[in-house]
Amino acid sequence: MVETRNPLNIGAAARAMANFGFSRLRAVNPYDVAFREARSAVGAAPLLRKAKDFAGVADAVAECRLVVGTTSVGHRELQHPIRRLEYGARLIRRALEQAPVALLFGSEKFGLSNDDLSHCHWLMRIPTVDQNMSMNLGQAVALCLYELARDPRAVKARPEKIRGATAGETEQIATRLTETLRESGYVNETTASSTEEKIRRLVMRLEIAGRDAPVLLGMLRQILWKLKSG
Amino acid sequence: MVETRNPLNIGAAARAMANFGFSRLRAVNPYDVAFREARSAVGAAPLLRKAKDFAGVADAVAECRLVVGTTSVGHRELQHPIRRLEYGARLIRRALEQAPVALLFGSEKFGLSNDDLSHCHWLMRIPTVDQNMSMNLGQAVALCLYELARDPRAVKARPEKIRGATAGETEQIATRLTETLRESGYVNETTASSTEEKIRRLVMRLEIAGRDAPVLLGMLRQILWKLKSG
Repeated sequence: MVETRNPLNIGAAARAMANFGFSRLRAVNPYDVAFREARSAVGAAPLLRKAKDFAGVADAVAECRLVVGTTSVGHRELQHPIRRLEYGARLIRRALEQAPVALLFGSEKFGLSNDDLSHCHWLMRIPTVDQNMSMNLGQAVALCLYELARDPRAVKARPEKIRGATAGETEQIATRLTETLRESGYVNETTASSTEEKIRRLVMRLEIAGRDAPVLLGMLRQILWKLKSG
Repeated sequence: MVETRNPLNIGAAARAMANFGFSRLRAVNPYDVAFREARSAVGAAPLLRKAKDFAGVADAVAECRLVVGTTSVGHRELQHPIRRLEYGARLIRRALEQAPVALLFGSEKFGLSNDDLSHCHWLMRIPTVDQNMSMNLGQAVALCLYELARDPRAVKARPEKIRGATAGETEQIATRLTETLRESGYVNETTASSTEEKIRRLVMRLEIAGRDAPVLLGMLRQILWKLKSG
């Protein structure tokens, strides 16, 4: 993070790093040396304690084989290839298998200077709707790290599903519901068997969760008791 | 945003919404009614002016056909299916083609309450390393909206590349460099032709940008002039 002015943003960056499994935070010429106390870094205190500060970009990125700058934009005459975050992150992930990679974030107000940019191999931009509107620094850091940690396979993953009710439980519910409806006069005795099927299909479609099955059964039992005793 | 305490987080959420093209912000029972003045919302002032506040979740999501809650975790006995952001966002994008979708974010300290959760069809979680460490609220909002706006095709997109030097320019540079090296005694006359090839291949590998070609030629011309005049 180069010339960051607001310690809250260093804190937010540290927190995002902890969230997504990154550990080496480096501050180049931070506005306030008290940056280690950055308040919003809930849970990221150890990471901030280890954070180092440097006088210049060159020292901060010395052992990295790839240096990527971040930019919101547009308005400057950029002399670097610019890659969208989705694609750039893929290249960074690949490079990380070989050697450390530096990801540079400029100051809140001015972004990276031309001098900072001259240390970069290429630039990465977050695909915002309006390229002239910059992002909040802490959010920009979080987005880049999220995209780096993102698992493309998870897009197709089956959801983490709640265990469904067993066929036996579903059947009990359907039976009890039918009985309740019969008791309450809903079921026409001449069409009773087709009604029972309709009820069962309806109960099946509800895809009742396992934990809800006994609750529903309890409700039906109570209603049924009341109907019969009334 | 349900019971948000810190107006900075409402501002950060509004800014992320503007960044990724979302416009309807709703606050349920926000901690401070002065939330519209939320300071960090650079460029998002119109969005915050239009933001509405509601007394309860039910009213805020009334016309939505899908209501998705966000959670970091873990520790509660959750009665909803939980989907990872990558997958959940895909489902939300699909649902958005039909009707409005509500995305709920709880308070900084407690997240969504069980009552809030009872209004949700399912939950979405951001895949952080440690599921028990929550994310900064403004960052969490930005990540969800980024994933919704993310373009999967961009992963494979060709980078926005700087125009390369033409073959003619590259050739001029190679020729001038060869001449310079010859003049400085680098080239052994018996192996001169293979050396020239090596130099050309090296220059080709540099993939010089179009704008850099005249600069490099100028440098070489100057060195050559000095070598010859010296």
